[in-house]
Amino acid sequence: MKDLTTENITENVHIVNSQCSDPRLRYLFERIVTHLHDFARETRLSTEEWQAGVQFLTEVGQISNDLRHEMILLSDTLGLSMLVDSINHPRMPPATEGTVLGPFHTHDAETMDHGAVLHSDPDATSLLCVCSIKDSQGNPVSDVKVDVWEGDSKGFYDVQNPNRAGPDGRGVLQSDSEGMFFLRAIVPVPYPIPMDGPVGKMLSKLGRHPNRPGHVHFMMDKPGYDLLITALYPRGDPYEASDPVFGVKDSLIVDLSTVEDSKMAAKYAVELGTKLLTYDFVLLTEPEARELRKKNAIEAMEKQQRKVVFHNDLPVPAQ
Amino acid sequence: MKDLTTENITENVHIVNSQCSDPRLRYLFERIVTHLHDFARETRLSTEEWQAGVQFLTEVGQISNDLRHEMILLSDTLGLSMLVDSINHPRMPPATEGTVLGPFHTHDAETMDHGAVLHSDPDATSLLCVCSIKDSQGNPVSDVKVDVWEGDSKGFYDVQNPNRAGPDGRGVLQSDSEGMFFLRAIVPVPYPIPMDGPVGKMLSKLGRHPNRPGHVHFMMDKPGYDLLITALYPRGDPYEASDPVFGVKDSLIVDLSTVEDSKMAAKYAVELGTKLLTYDFVLLTEPEARELRKKNAIEAMEKQQRKVVFHNDLPVPAQ
Repeated sequence: MKDLTTENITENVHIVNSQCSDPRLRYLFERIVTHLHDFARETRLSTEEWQAGVQFLTEVGQISNDLRHEMILLSDTLGLSMLVDSINHPRMPPATEGTVLGPFHTHDAETMDHGAVLHSDPDATSLLCVCSIKDSQGNPVSDVKVDVWEGDSKGFYDVQNPNRAGPDGRGVLQSDSEGMFFLRAIVPVPYPIPMDGPVGKMLSKLGRHPNRPGHVHFMMDKPGYDLLITALYPRGDPYEASDPVFGVKDSLIVDLSTVEDSKMAAKYAVELGTKLLTYDFVLLTEPEARELRKKNAIEAMEKQQRKVVFHNDLPVPAQ
Repeated sequence: MKDLTTENITENVHIVNSQCSDPRLRYLFERIVTHLHDFARETRLSTEEWQAGVQFLTEVGQISNDLRHEMILLSDTLGLSMLVDSINHPRMPPATEGTVLGPFHTHDAETMDHGAVLHSDPDATSLLCVCSIKDSQGNPVSDVKVDVWEGDSKGFYDVQNPNRAGPDGRGVLQSDSEGMFFLRAIVPVPYPIPMDGPVGKMLSKLGRHPNRPGHVHFMMDKPGYDLLITALYPRGDPYEASDPVFGVKDSLIVDLSTVEDSKMAAKYAVELGTKLLTYDFVLLTEPEARELRKKNAIEAMEKQQRKVVFHNDLPVPAQ
């Protein structure tokens, strides 16, 4: 390994990295180094551009902390987060599609009872959510841990409040024996992703707007089932077709209605006229999702003219 | 733009980014998004691996500061820095080849006279460097700003000393009217790149050693000439063929000799027996380098079956 040129350096880096004993890590580095080098060769990346990239990534790291996930936001705005979710949680009808986790999920949300109020925001429009969770055969799935979070009536998440005392606009419920859960969220509004950091500057330079269409996040977790990270988007949002993090899918756009039945209002302890969101979530089992992932992985390797073996359920090229 | 799938999301991101008014930035984002997405699709990047990558890049940014350039070190250890240098400073004989800048260059080095002592290190072996700078036609190049830096006898750069009071082991000279310069450096020793950060952990996981072969860095700058960032490596270093940052090239390996002539010892004010490094650097002019870059850029675009136009001397695809 000497006398490296623009053409042979990639092969030389692969040789050095091939000492790695983990076949999966070896494969990941072979592919990332190839793509990184091809990117530089194809664009004739200038020293100034390289420096700007190094500086940009450094700034993205430095502004990040436990409550501000700028690196995830970068991944989101490049469409990578959405892609990784699709790869890891492949769906086929009738399974509910996933979408980006986003940078605002936290692990400190409190457990709440059905019917609980998600937000303390006095200016928000209350939104009763009545949802079911079923498996792909139509059977109710009970005891699913349902993590719900959303921004307030101004479009801000609690973690964006510098004086945040504790979680607000987020909570964790369990689906009941009939796979049902309900809560009082708020009608979501569009909001800009944070524009005061390096990712915001990037979007400005690209001529992109920062506004996400309003949505309520849901994460559904139960052993034996494939984790579902998704969100529901009320129809008609001005940014529905140009989400900066590529999170909207047709199947996740919902028509809100209104509680017009007094029996229903009584059952859920809300006033008549309260806005209503209903949705029937469908989870895949872990084996169903694993089989889909495996099929897709084999196809992806065949596209590269490579034979595949699996290492901890993840594909690596056969030697 | 809706109903994104693993297959169509890349095209959708391109559509959104095509709003960018700068054709060069548009091209860079088209290529980086394509490669990033292809990487995820080819490897079926798992959510855990994606999270590890996000966390890794965040840590690389967070440990970086004015004196510790971990993001550059990452680029170095992936072979990207060497590649970017080769792209931006293409050479053809007799021009001196470039190599990585590395993470230890600073901008606070003091101007020194010829013959000055680079290091205060009392344990080092003195190394007289007597060098010339010529152009590709063999004419001496005077008034070149020559930035020289190297580690100490233990392999540490001054910036790695937490009590650093000012620059040591670095200095800036000017070539004289005959294109000559000389200084008293030290015989360089191999040293490990910093292993206490995320890049060090990465190398460990890849089974790679961290030891760079000993070298002295040189950066040569003069208006009208292509910037030369290079280093010289005394022959026989145990890590000569496995440099973790891919910086060694045959033409940059030098045989050290000894000052055996008393006239020479007197001329350079060193003792007889002092170790001696001589080297004849050859700079390209800016037009020579620009022409080479342009030729290489056209070839790189042809490989992609794209016609090229130039925007601020950098290639972009013709519409």
